[in-house]
Amino acid sequence: MKVSIQGELGSFSHQAAEELLPKAKVVPCAASADVFEKVSSGAVDAAVVPIENSLAGSVAEHFDLLLAHDVRVELEHELRIVHNLIAAPGVKLSQIRHVLSHPVALAQCRDFLRKHPQIRPEPFYDTAGSVKHIMEAGLRDTAGIASKRAVGQYGARLLEAGIEDDKQNFTRFFIVKKKVKPQKDANKTSVAFALKNQPGVLFKALSVFALRDISLSKIESRPMRGRPWEYVFYVDFLRGDDEAARNALKHLSEIAEFVKVLGVYPAARK
Amino acid sequence: MKVSIQGELGSFSHQAAEELLPKAKVVPCAASADVFEKVSSGAVDAAVVPIENSLAGSVAEHFDLLLAHDVRVELEHELRIVHNLIAAPGVKLSQIRHVLSHPVALAQCRDFLRKHPQIRPEPFYDTAGSVKHIMEAGLRDTAGIASKRAVGQYGARLLEAGIEDDKQNFTRFFIVKKKVKPQKDANKTSVAFALKNQPGVLFKALSVFALRDISLSKIESRPMRGRPWEYVFYVDFLRGDDEAARNALKHLSEIAEFVKVLGVYPAARK
Repeated sequence: MKVSIQGELGSFSHQAAEELLPKAKVVPCAASADVFEKVSSGAVDAAVVPIENSLAGSVAEHFDLLLAHDVRVELEHELRIVHNLIAAPGVKLSQIRHVLSHPVALAQCRDFLRKHPQIRPEPFYDTAGSVKHIMEAGLRDTAGIASKRAVGQYGARLLEAGIEDDKQNFTRFFIVKKKVKPQKDANKTSVAFALKNQPGVLFKALSVFALRDISLSKIESRPMRGRPWEYVFYVDFLRGDDEAARNALKHLSEIAEFVKVLGVYPAARK
Repeated sequence: MKVSIQGELGSFSHQAAEELLPKAKVVPCAASADVFEKVSSGAVDAAVVPIENSLAGSVAEHFDLLLAHDVRVELEHELRIVHNLIAAPGVKLSQIRHVLSHPVALAQCRDFLRKHPQIRPEPFYDTAGSVKHIMEAGLRDTAGIASKRAVGQYGARLLEAGIEDDKQNFTRFFIVKKKVKPQKDANKTSVAFALKNQPGVLFKALSVFALRDISLSKIESRPMRGRPWEYVFYVDFLRGDDEAARNALKHLSEIAEFVKVLGVYPAARK
């Protein structure tokens, strides 16, 4: 089995893919569009993609790609984001003068950086990529901030684990496949729909859930490409494929321009 | 007058700040938190911050910082994002073998990169930062992709303008100040509110607008820091400070845990 991820090996996506599909061969892709194209074309069996981080917000591009491709969500998974200081083997913390990582990761480790004023933070394009770069360039005064998965991937050394400020830092990942079989314990549905820009139309759309006592766990609006005044809405609701949910979706299709069910799957949190 | 921006000089934020406040002195900050702290503390008179890109989505961190700080939105502004290929003076397109930029910018220039297979895209932490790096390191086989503002900022040369795939690429910026006077032509309101996780509560909250024929132009949900099952909602509605809007906000405060008006300002699009 093959699974595509976005970004370098050793990343948080790589860690999530290994937790979800431990036997799969991981295929790294530079662009998210490639990750989804590989699933739709059948070049890989699944993709594991981050969809939302509890501090940094939604990965809007991945919602758009879910809508654009003929694929379905099979499962959601929450990964605790633990940032680690990683350097070349034999290097000690006292030798470190520079730290490279993605700006979001650097911003999430401010307390650690404040306590070590001799270490200068420098933005880099990727978390795991920073460790890869340090090992390839043989740097001994520089560390990276990345997933612990990057340590083994690049033969590096863990200098300090868990240096993130906020432990309530989670990323929600989806397993995405071309076809998904119905799952008995599925109790959550992700749906995308478009509405005309008319007063109260969102209220009408949400009434299809409220009238049936169906709880929403997420709502997001995104401008449609090339149509700046029209929006696509992404909604998660806490129901599987039961009669009320089917009726709500049928009712929604009377109001919306289009409705697409992105997936019906077991919720990660009970 | 001083205005803080996030990121390097020569960035799209710098371009937006100059269009909005042409006489202001621009103060670049590495982290978005510093941009807002400088406004609340009075160290600068205003901040200019990106809030939403039509292709890449909302800048979630900036919504959170708007909520956390005692500041108000004075104006919104839409900037067309034009990506440009920029190199050192005297360098020709035929000499370029590498191009550095932020991964989002590289992904938005795929057609150009496909037509020039001799140029290898390499991710960099920042758009304007790529031009700064090329000039400082004296690279003559490498170009950056950035705002045209980076050309003058770093004494570089524009090799090719407008290399983005999609011309419908806009970023919405806010001018943020500590205090904002009421504006006569204000016809748009941004508001943040929190709801308990109960079935139908969002439906009730949106009813306060629908019952008064008030149109929403944006809705977004964000998990609250440290309280993973509770959400803050960000809503824009197309009304200034009139009676219906005041009644709607009063009604909303009966349903919500808290309501904060982030700003009442003239809409960028009529």
